[in-house]
Amino acid sequence: MTSTGTAVAEAAIGKSPTNKISIVMFSGTADKFIPLGVLAQAGSAMGMDVEVFITGFALLGFTKEPHEAPFPSEFAAMAPALMQGMKGNQVAPWDTMLRQAKDLGAKVHVCSMMSGVMGLKLEDYNDLVDDVVGAATFVETARGGETFFI
Amino acid sequence: MTSTGTAVAEAAIGKSPTNKISIVMFSGTADKFIPLGVLAQAGSAMGMDVEVFITGFALLGFTKEPHEAPFPSEFAAMAPALMQGMKGNQVAPWDTMLRQAKDLGAKVHVCSMMSGVMGLKLEDYNDLVDDVVGAATFVETARGGETFFI
Amino acid sequence: MTSTGTAVAEAAIGKSPTNKISIVMFSGTADKFIPLGVLAQAGSAMGMDVEVFITGFALLGFTKEPHEAPFPSEFAAMAPALMQGMKGNQVAPWDTMLRQAKDLGAKVHVCSMMSGVMGLKLEDYNDLVDDVVGAATFVETARGGETFFI
Repeated sequence: MTSTGTAVAEAAIGKSPTNKISIVMFSGTADKFIPLGVLAQAGSAMGMDVEVFITGFALLGFTKEPHEAPFPSEFAAMAPALMQGMKGNQVAPWDTMLRQAKDLGAKVHVCSMMSGVMGLKLEDYNDLVDDVVGAATFVETARGGETFFI
Repeated sequence: MTSTGTAVAEAAIGKSPTNKISIVMFSGTADKFIPLGVLAQAGSAMGMDVEVFITGFALLGFTKEPHEAPFPSEFAAMAPALMQGMKGNQVAPWDTMLRQAKDLGAKVHVCSMMSGVMGLKLEDYNDLVDDVVGAATFVETARGGETFFI
Repeated sequence: MTSTGTAVAEAAIGKSPTNKISIVMFSGTADKFIPLGVLAQAGSAMGMDVEVFITGFALLGFTKEPHEAPFPSEFAAMAPALMQGMKGNQVAPWDTMLRQAKDLGAKVHVCSMMSGVMGLKLEDYNDLVDDVVGAATFVETARGGETFFI
């Protein structure tokens, strides 16, 4: 589909493109942090609002105390080749991409409920994190945009 | 981003916030049922339409005959501490949160194709389930809202 | 919720239903290809634009050289019964469903960054793939529609 086609289709149904991407980041395996960085960076670079809500096992990727994220068990054998491929292609680490997104206005919120469950407070998180909020606040923030659950 | 900022951005692009959340619940590991409960409950409490479509391994969480959902293999070692943290923080079980959502109007649909594959009929599901529908019906229902694939 | 109810709610908030589904296909386990096929086929059959972005481990499902997708480790014991159930219920394979979607206009894009990481070029992919594009192009294409991250 061409972008002209998209514009025509949207005009036909009386709808403007949204200007917001909201990402719920739940999974904590190492691979899933890459699409978080890529989507946040791409959306921010295009001038979209990007709102990220960190919950579940993904919290462990945002603590001052580092936790090594596990590779998904089904694809563990591929990990060395992929790491090599990322270096060879000079792919930026996910947190570098997320930091670029934040420089362009992206916000990173951490789930208050899951923080409580894991015994983590705002001061336990690194500087990628803007604040600790409840899910209702995030759902309100996400309204009217595209949403991704990673 | 402030909520005022959101409103201004939406006004600028001529778009109202949506009033519907649709969740495709596919994953069947124990951890993923928590965001289902949280998103459904938060959305319903805010007066949004919440539509849930249960498919894949998640069907096993809705049968009268109970199935214990497995913990994701990569994080299995964390299961006891997380269970302890949920009790200590008085986090409601996911099905309690989903029931609260249903009391506020949320609907839970089960996938007809996957029910057939697993040999399950409407009478095999518990009272969280409203009906058994096809994917096309769900896609139609989901139009014009936020969508999450868990 | 009835479809009349949906229409009323949408009129109330001044919003038309969207006419586009965008799917980011990241997971590479065998089970997750089924909802890709189902959502793409259902959306296309309803006259919606369907845009699929293949990335992560899912790339391996689209190469000329076949790769057998692993079953998720937590549910591996269920694989034989599910395969049997799919045959018994004459469920089409996921690639047949995706091909039907493509016949109705769905587009399948492969992630350029992940292709580079895996050392794959356009000519390494099978005929389900339309092109190799960057994430920013996909984010632009996805604007104003429903989005799913599988």
